[in-house]
Amino acid sequence: MRRQFLAFATMNLILLDEEDFVTDSRVCLIGRRRDHILNVHRAVIGDELRVGLLNGLMGCGRILSVTDQGLEIETSLDQQPPEPLAVTLLLALPRPKMLRRILQSVSSLGVKKMFLINSYRVDKSFWGSPVLQSEKLQEQLVLGLEQGIDTILPEIHLCPRFKPFVEDRLPDIVRGTTAYVAHPGVESACPHDFNKPATLAIGPEGGFIPYEVEKLQNCGFIPISLGERILRVETAVPVLLSRLI
Amino acid sequence: MRRQFLAFATMNLILLDEEDFVTDSRVCLIGRRRDHILNVHRAVIGDELRVGLLNGLMGCGRILSVTDQGLEIETSLDQQPPEPLAVTLLLALPRPKMLRRILQSVSSLGVKKMFLINSYRVDKSFWGSPVLQSEKLQEQLVLGLEQGIDTILPEIHLCPRFKPFVEDRLPDIVRGTTAYVAHPGVESACPHDFNKPATLAIGPEGGFIPYEVEKLQNCGFIPISLGERILRVETAVPVLLSRLI
Repeated sequence: MRRQFLAFATMNLILLDEEDFVTDSRVCLIGRRRDHILNVHRAVIGDELRVGLLNGLMGCGRILSVTDQGLEIETSLDQQPPEPLAVTLLLALPRPKMLRRILQSVSSLGVKKMFLINSYRVDKSFWGSPVLQSEKLQEQLVLGLEQGIDTILPEIHLCPRFKPFVEDRLPDIVRGTTAYVAHPGVESACPHDFNKPATLAIGPEGGFIPYEVEKLQNCGFIPISLGERILRVETAVPVLLSRLI
Repeated sequence: MRRQFLAFATMNLILLDEEDFVTDSRVCLIGRRRDHILNVHRAVIGDELRVGLLNGLMGCGRILSVTDQGLEIETSLDQQPPEPLAVTLLLALPRPKMLRRILQSVSSLGVKKMFLINSYRVDKSFWGSPVLQSEKLQEQLVLGLEQGIDTILPEIHLCPRFKPFVEDRLPDIVRGTTAYVAHPGVESACPHDFNKPATLAIGPEGGFIPYEVEKLQNCGFIPISLGERILRVETAVPVLLSRLI
């Protein structure tokens, strides 16, 4: 009897990169992924696992050997990753601990383009957090891909200055999409099942300040709310994405 | 200039209980709420805050005095709390750390009835966690009410035995509702904007086992999925609730 107890994020897909390949189809894994396959999946020689190449195809892998040096898997990659979510996310930089969880959930939900932006209510110290180093960001996004069964790494852009971002870059970002800004207290509700390309801006805890909402509105953003209740950012992100898609 | 930096959950409503009242309309707060009002809201004498009585009305409070002994607020409670969410939630007991966050988010979203149930893939040790003590559960639910601006404490029921729960109690729970069980891989998608009384069952990481899904189906539950992606429980909960409501 094999039970799959999952320490933290679930590795529903073993994500490979080019460097893991020792032949055209065979990989040798060490470290975190090897340990997870052996200790969490409790996989043994001959077992099949779902695998995928970062930014490439997904498929099946069969465990060939397990040694202290590594775990060898024969892969066969022939499936396309799932369709990306047609939502570009603008998120006022949350505090680092919450950012990590949000990155994972956003990545598992299939968001492929995300801008971490500044806002008056973003604590300036957050911009100095080591979580924003690109390899740390990638680490969280990869956890989300492994969870959500996807291979396409989301793009993240750091935009520590609100005004130049909104004035110089945002018009290009929103082009061809319907743009919404979540703003508690406004009348119009977040649409259900919108299912067309969208840009979604979510403010910090406490919300965007009126000046910021106005700047976003000048750029075509429609303020929407989720009713009377005010949600934490990490709850609002999946709630809003789920409504739109 | 007063900025509202928020350490953790946002206290968008100061939740009072009967014991806080020193006269019919005046409360004296000490501890966590006093500190939050002074240090996070940076409120001063004369400021107005949103307040609410646990399981009662909401309204406005004006700060009368601040001393080391406590913070006195004159309250005027005349508003109904928001409508409860018409979804009863059945959740396979998650690991304690995740449970805390889920309780907060579920409470902030307006769920008022929740059953933490067992499942084959729930680690038995989770049932021994101190988080399940009723005062600890209430602590997290209160944080969610303060965040979501609501006063009605959700009911939580602990159901550590799956079969007796499903056979003896579940038929009464689902009566008058449409019941859904989230089960990755099934064809039918979670409905959008369902907006009628519903019961929603969400399994553990790794999902309910087929026997459990069958037992739920016998009780009238309809398996639904969220597409190809597999979400962590703490992401799936807001995503599914948001779809239904």
